[in-house]
Amino acid sequence: MTNDEYRAIESYMLLNMNDKAHDQHHVYRVLNAALDIASHEGAEKIAAGVLIAACLLHDIGREAQSADHRLCHAQVGSIMAYDYLISRGWPVCAAVHVKDCIATHRYRRDTVPQSIEAKILFDADKLEASGAIGIARTLIYGGQVAEPLYIIDESGNIITDGGGAEISSFMQEYNYKLKNVYNAFYTKRAKDIAAKRQETAIAFYGGLYCEIQENYKNSIDSYLIDKQPHNNPQNHNKPVN
Amino acid sequence: MTNDEYRAIESYMLLNMNDKAHDQHHVYRVLNAALDIASHEGAEKIAAGVLIAACLLHDIGREAQSADHRLCHAQVGSIMAYDYLISRGWPVCAAVHVKDCIATHRYRRDTVPQSIEAKILFDADKLEASGAIGIARTLIYGGQVAEPLYIIDESGNIITDGGGAEISSFMQEYNYKLKNVYNAFYTKRAKDIAAKRQETAIAFYGGLYCEIQENYKNSIDSYLIDKQPHNNPQNHNKPVN
Repeated sequence: MTNDEYRAIESYMLLNMNDKAHDQHHVYRVLNAALDIASHEGAEKIAAGVLIAACLLHDIGREAQSADHRLCHAQVGSIMAYDYLISRGWPVCAAVHVKDCIATHRYRRDTVPQSIEAKILFDADKLEASGAIGIARTLIYGGQVAEPLYIIDESGNIITDGGGAEISSFMQEYNYKLKNVYNAFYTKRAKDIAAKRQETAIAFYGGLYCEIQENYKNSIDSYLIDKQPHNNPQNHNKPVN
Repeated sequence: MTNDEYRAIESYMLLNMNDKAHDQHHVYRVLNAALDIASHEGAEKIAAGVLIAACLLHDIGREAQSADHRLCHAQVGSIMAYDYLISRGWPVCAAVHVKDCIATHRYRRDTVPQSIEAKILFDADKLEASGAIGIARTLIYGGQVAEPLYIIDESGNIITDGGGAEISSFMQEYNYKLKNVYNAFYTKRAKDIAAKRQETAIAFYGGLYCEIQENYKNSIDSYLIDKQPHNNPQNHNKPVN
């Protein structure tokens, strides 16, 4: 890819990255990781231009999805990317290739990546949910959308599965996605990077869980003089930051 | 403290906890930790009512500070708490004791806690900056106020100190406050709890730092055909989420 072409696609990406939870710096990390994976897969086998364009443009549909949750950012973004690349004179087959990569990059998906470039984009994006960076991004996102850190049930225990809770929390997201992302990779390089990161994520989640459960063992009840049933909001399935 | 008195002070606290970064669940954890520390200090030495009121009301000045950053929430909150407790018929000496506890609970402070109750509140609040919970709360706060995870300098390295960067980041906050909180405790019990948590925090920060630095080693430059100087925004001291 030429420098000018890169800069043009990068500018189009920047124009469309107004969703702060998936900002351009996530895109640069995905691109960096994809280039690393590509070099381990044998760079000569990879359509580098397609991969670079797919990485840069993979989340440009986020804003549309944020505005209307029925939309899928991967589907919307794949069409936006195709139209943009065609408008820049890309051959249809290359623009379709980028479109297919973007359409299949989601973790929550009913389509799977087919080409090596689609698999690399998928893996590079999923590395962003692994290790400490996966934890950090999920917590920052929680702050942005006011999602709680954890939810406590009526017995004072942290809800860690999806069971019945209307509001999802960081602890639930960890158990649904972050914990399981290590089995989702297609390439050996991505698996290896994720495996190196996994211990940090497990230790963090385990530490957080213990710290909170230990803290909630100390009850106010024994300090209160008259023991009327106390409607304590901290034990009533409320979101907790 | 009677159940009715607890419930009244709790209601006043809830009325004043509109700053989402320091919400009521932080307050309940501080109260739980303070009761735990008090039991280890010898509960008979502690003015339990003063301690409970001080914990419940310690952050009620946050909203005023958010609206006007020149105000200190500890100072504002201590006066609000005093006025509220006097209005409920508390003796002046007890209301002053609560006021003094709240006035001296900050990490960034020029006053130090004097009474054992003030030291316990300080320690219980500082435990919230230790371990995984300290990391999690700082990242959630970063999401809420759009503070970046890290800032990259022109050489592609993460800025970890305060040096010259106008925008502070999670990485800078870790090195300014979270890393050093373990030396700030007054009570043995709080020191012991924090020491148990410290390893998780160190491992997380170290893991995050390595993951990001490793990722940024993979440059787009070698994939671009014409090597004009490329004004790459990812290496220009920009905030990064």
